[in-house]
Amino acid sequence: MQPKIDPTSATSSHRLRVRFCETDLMGIVHHASYLAYFEAARVAWLRRRGVTYATWAALGWHLPVVEASVRYRAPARFEDVLAVETVLAELRSHSMRYAYRVLRGQECLAEGETRLACVDSAHKLQRIPKEVIGILCSAETQPDADGV
Amino acid sequence: MQPKIDPTSATSSHRLRVRFCETDLMGIVHHASYLAYFEAARVAWLRRRGVTYATWAALGWHLPVVEASVRYRAPARFEDVLAVETVLAELRSHSMRYAYRVLRGQECLAEGETRLACVDSAHKLQRIPKEVIGILCSAETQPDADGV
Amino acid sequence: MQPKIDPTSATSSHRLRVRFCETDLMGIVHHASYLAYFEAARVAWLRRRGVTYATWAALGWHLPVVEASVRYRAPARFEDVLAVETVLAELRSHSMRYAYRVLRGQECLAEGETRLACVDSAHKLQRIPKEVIGILCSAETQPDADGV
Amino acid sequence: MQPKIDPTSATSSHRLRVRFCETDLMGIVHHASYLAYFEAARVAWLRRRGVTYATWAALGWHLPVVEASVRYRAPARFEDVLAVETVLAELRSHSMRYAYRVLRGQECLAEGETRLACVDSAHKLQRIPKEVIGILCSAETQPDADGV
Repeated sequence: MQPKIDPTSATSSHRLRVRFCETDLMGIVHHASYLAYFEAARVAWLRRRGVTYATWAALGWHLPVVEASVRYRAPARFEDVLAVETVLAELRSHSMRYAYRVLRGQECLAEGETRLACVDSAHKLQRIPKEVIGILCSAETQPDADGV
Repeated sequence: MQPKIDPTSATSSHRLRVRFCETDLMGIVHHASYLAYFEAARVAWLRRRGVTYATWAALGWHLPVVEASVRYRAPARFEDVLAVETVLAELRSHSMRYAYRVLRGQECLAEGETRLACVDSAHKLQRIPKEVIGILCSAETQPDADGV
Repeated sequence: MQPKIDPTSATSSHRLRVRFCETDLMGIVHHASYLAYFEAARVAWLRRRGVTYATWAALGWHLPVVEASVRYRAPARFEDVLAVETVLAELRSHSMRYAYRVLRGQECLAEGETRLACVDSAHKLQRIPKEVIGILCSAETQPDADGV
Repeated sequence: MQPKIDPTSATSSHRLRVRFCETDLMGIVHHASYLAYFEAARVAWLRRRGVTYATWAALGWHLPVVEASVRYRAPARFEDVLAVETVLAELRSHSMRYAYRVLRGQECLAEGETRLACVDSAHKLQRIPKEVIGILCSAETQPDADGV
């Protein structure tokens, strides 16, 4: 049975500022940079629930992205401050899905999703352990450290 | 009316070798690198039909990615030689959609799609001109220069 | 005559957290990522003195990097919080040189320098204007917004 | 005693084409991309002497970059075909230094150097083994596969 997710407690927002190296010759943020933004926001989402990389590494596990999608609505630009709203959208036995919205003020610049699988160091699929599921379904427990 | 696309003539294959900087600490190619591979393959797809960046720039146009999706099946690794099979999947009045398969030998490592919009330098949507449509529906006219 | 630079007021520190996509298969931060860290720190250095990209763009100017060097002392790792200490080391008529130290706590992980030239949009060398020189020689006037 | 290097046999050239994602909003190749070009050229240099990543990995070794420098002379642009001339400039007991020139036709766009240390998986410095030194001092033995 899939655990129930409360969208409010399952949402976190991560602020970041667009770097020069993330732009391209169109003068806008390169479309691949948004996957890096999603990733940074997802890592912050986990960290704010007390889950760091060391948590997974101690288990010998990784969370590779197995599906990703982005819809680009309006270009982000150099030095823009963006907020990446991240929500745990689905939690399955061996994978989880996050949904993202990249905001500049009230304007939504991009939306997307990623599905992550839980694998061991040999890339073999693993069941997400109960104690981690509890954490993933919890609200933020750590203060926000914007950008860092 | 949408132009008819012949899948055989609308397909090109681009070979590339995985760079060290495209890997991550999981020891595999980082998931965002595939968007760079799609892009390189798409640019090669256009170049093999005689369309270079200068072609668009002369018109003051760009082809930003407005949607992207990737499904990751198996990890690519450092020094792997990959073939990115690219096909023009749909051609609309103001946008086009490409589909990609990343192959290592016979094994499909990833699949994906991108939709590109035709815009002017102010990011205003433009109709793809007739002469370009003719080119996009044509088969390769230029020899392959793998990797370059 | 070169303006005199006070090393204390000419130094700023920029905090950032290592992103997953900045690592490589050695399990450490890829060496090219440090140039991105220097750049982010330099942009923050300017911003904290009231100089944003819009300031240069309004003049039609850019500050391309014309020389860069890095000495790597110890590896940075995923999720590390780093402080990039940035100092304006030299100010010439048409260029300027910044020096950087990347710190994790008290430990210096990397040091480096970049020289930036002042050019117009045709990449022609330009004299740095007097009013900008005054700003570059000043201390921070803006509060720090770590990471953003 | 340091082995003698014959500059002619110790030089290889690697062709690559500038990718869109390697440009920045100045409309030119981002300065950090040159470190990726150096790296791709160095990996090709080794491969053309029969040394692949598997060679080092079998020994449990890595070759991290411990120093890097670049002097930028003229901007490279999207779709440019570049040749990266790579020469083994110095071979010490525990490290080696490569020098690079990035050429577009006859024009030199950038020059640089990197020093690589030989380390084990715990990042402990290792003596470069005699059999590898012999290979490093040899001329190309493998055909060129440009770009791949």
